Amino acid sequence: VSLKLKDYIEGFKQGDTTVLAQAITLIESQKDDHKKLALQLLSAVKNINQSVILGISGTPGVGKSTFIETFGLELIKRGKKIAVLAVDPSSGVTGGSILGDKTRMQELSQKAFIRPSPSGKTLGGVALKTREAILLCESFGFDYILIETVGVGQSESQIASLVDHFILLMQPGAGDDLQAIKRGILEHADSIIVNKADGDLVKKANITKAQLESSLDILRQKNIHIHLVSALKKQGISEFVDELFKEANSHDFFSKRESQEKLWIEQILEDALIEALEANKKYHAQKLKLIDDVYNNNESIEKAVEDIVKGLSYGN
Amino acid sequence: VSLKLKDYIEGFKQGDTTVLAQAITLIESQKDDHKKLALQLLSAVKNINQSVILGISGTPGVGKSTFIETFGLELIKRGKKIAVLAVDPSSGVTGGSILGDKTRMQELSQKAFIRPSPSGKTLGGVALKTREAILLCESFGFDYILIETVGVGQSESQIASLVDHFILLMQPGAGDDLQAIKRGILEHADSIIVNKADGDLVKKANITKAQLESSLDILRQKNIHIHLVSALKKQGISEFVDELFKEANSHDFFSKRESQEKLWIEQILEDALIEALEANKKYHAQKLKLIDDVYNNNESIEKAVEDIVKGLSYGN
Repeated sequence: VSLKLKDYIEGFKQGDTTVLAQAITLIESQKDDHKKLALQLLSAVKNINQSVILGISGTPGVGKSTFIETFGLELIKRGKKIAVLAVDPSSGVTGGSILGDKTRMQELSQKAFIRPSPSGKTLGGVALKTREAILLCESFGFDYILIETVGVGQSESQIASLVDHFILLMQPGAGDDLQAIKRGILEHADSIIVNKADGDLVKKANITKAQLESSLDILRQKNIHIHLVSALKKQGISEFVDELFKEANSHDFFSKRESQEKLWIEQILEDALIEALEANKKYHAQKLKLIDDVYNNNESIEKAVEDIVKGLSYGN
Repeated sequence: VSLKLKDYIEGFKQGDTTVLAQAITLIESQKDDHKKLALQLLSAVKNINQSVILGISGTPGVGKSTFIETFGLELIKRGKKIAVLAVDPSSGVTGGSILGDKTRMQELSQKAFIRPSPSGKTLGGVALKTREAILLCESFGFDYILIETVGVGQSESQIASLVDHFILLMQPGAGDDLQAIKRGILEHADSIIVNKADGDLVKKANITKAQLESSLDILRQKNIHIHLVSALKKQGISEFVDELFKEANSHDFFSKRESQEKLWIEQILEDALIEALEANKKYHAQKLKLIDDVYNNNESIEKAVEDIVKGLSYGN
């Protein structure tokens, strides 16, 4: 990375997506001087624009790519500038990417900014970097930022803490096994899309919608709307976008922003503390010694906890 | 919790599963005196027995419960004492449970110790508590401990760090969409079970096995065996157990134990440090002030990082 702070800011002003891509690479870097520059950049671009940030999730096979392609193109048709960030926490070892290549969203990739998964050793780390990529995209001037994630598990809570509105994709027939629909995921949903509602599956999709509506109290409590869509046939998308635009104008659409931003700041501060501790030689040596002692049964774990904490002090 | 340390130890000696259940509740408790007692208990029971610890994962609908029921009963038939722990990181908000009730494993629940998901605010927290529940079950004297988890995403890496052997369940047809099979998950697998290989699906299951074997280099590198099983019809289970027993006798089956235990000790120490910091009034006040300052644009994030770290010292 050879750009300076002013180069990034200038590139953002000119709408240069190459500079944006480099900026995202910068915030993902683990090098000390990159980290410092990244924080300066994030400070400089903070609060410049307000985008609508959408989370999009669903189990593999539900048609996420097709939905994002169709949905994204509809947004563009209506004059919106969009960015797509993909978060794939499923590849802990190699750090994979949902998007793989952009061939999965062929037309959209020519009209939108698409960026695969930021890497990170932990899910929390991925979320932190995604948050920062969102901030960059927001200040760059996108109207809509779509965050794609895989659809089972913990990732939803993390992504929900990053977005204004969470869209959950389901298959026709998903209502047949309500047990399998995790409450935790539904609790984060703001809209449910029953995708593939075309041809033979229209009837099944309608039944699924009715099943979900009648069985899941939580949908009523949160007033979650269920939409029948065929992303492939481009059906139901326009109606969904109408409703989304209406909601995005409502008073509480951005109500989570303050707590989300404060949480992000807190995470940065805590990460910095852990890093500072790890860089402290006395701490590091003490930690390794205690781990060995406990492992070799020379010290009990509760005594080791006492010992490690004893060395710590703050603000004296 | 009214039991004392000696009551737990006595209950473990007598094989009282009620005491085991209470001990797991104890380690999950967030209360300070419970935490202290939990660490004493974990120290006391450490290294008493060596169980085989198995992770079992697969996407919803793959037949995990049926597999665990059939597989567990086969292990019991062969004279093994088994425990089943379910980890469900998907319900971040309510802290749900995969098992729900024990009706999903009706016969097994009468012959095995079954315990739903330990709660935890983060996936790391869940893994930590699961590790401790495993230690308790191990010292209680179970021969096999089965850890069930949902099957997409980050949870696999966490669970893989807890087990000796990771079993991944797949559907017949899973090989048709190799793109959708996340590399990260396969990298953790030690055995792959293609379940539901009965009736009409036998042919499809065989094709899936061949597809996986021919396409995935990683299977060859790691020498992962693929087994065709019908948990429902109880087919292929006995052969799988034969192979597993053979592997469990091999030299490197428990090779991950040292690094797993050291990682667990490190997590406990780091958690204790963060807790100690949070309990420090100067730190807590400083953190809240900095979060507000950054949020209100009265301080830059990189200056806040400097400020929070400045107060920290270790070992002086």
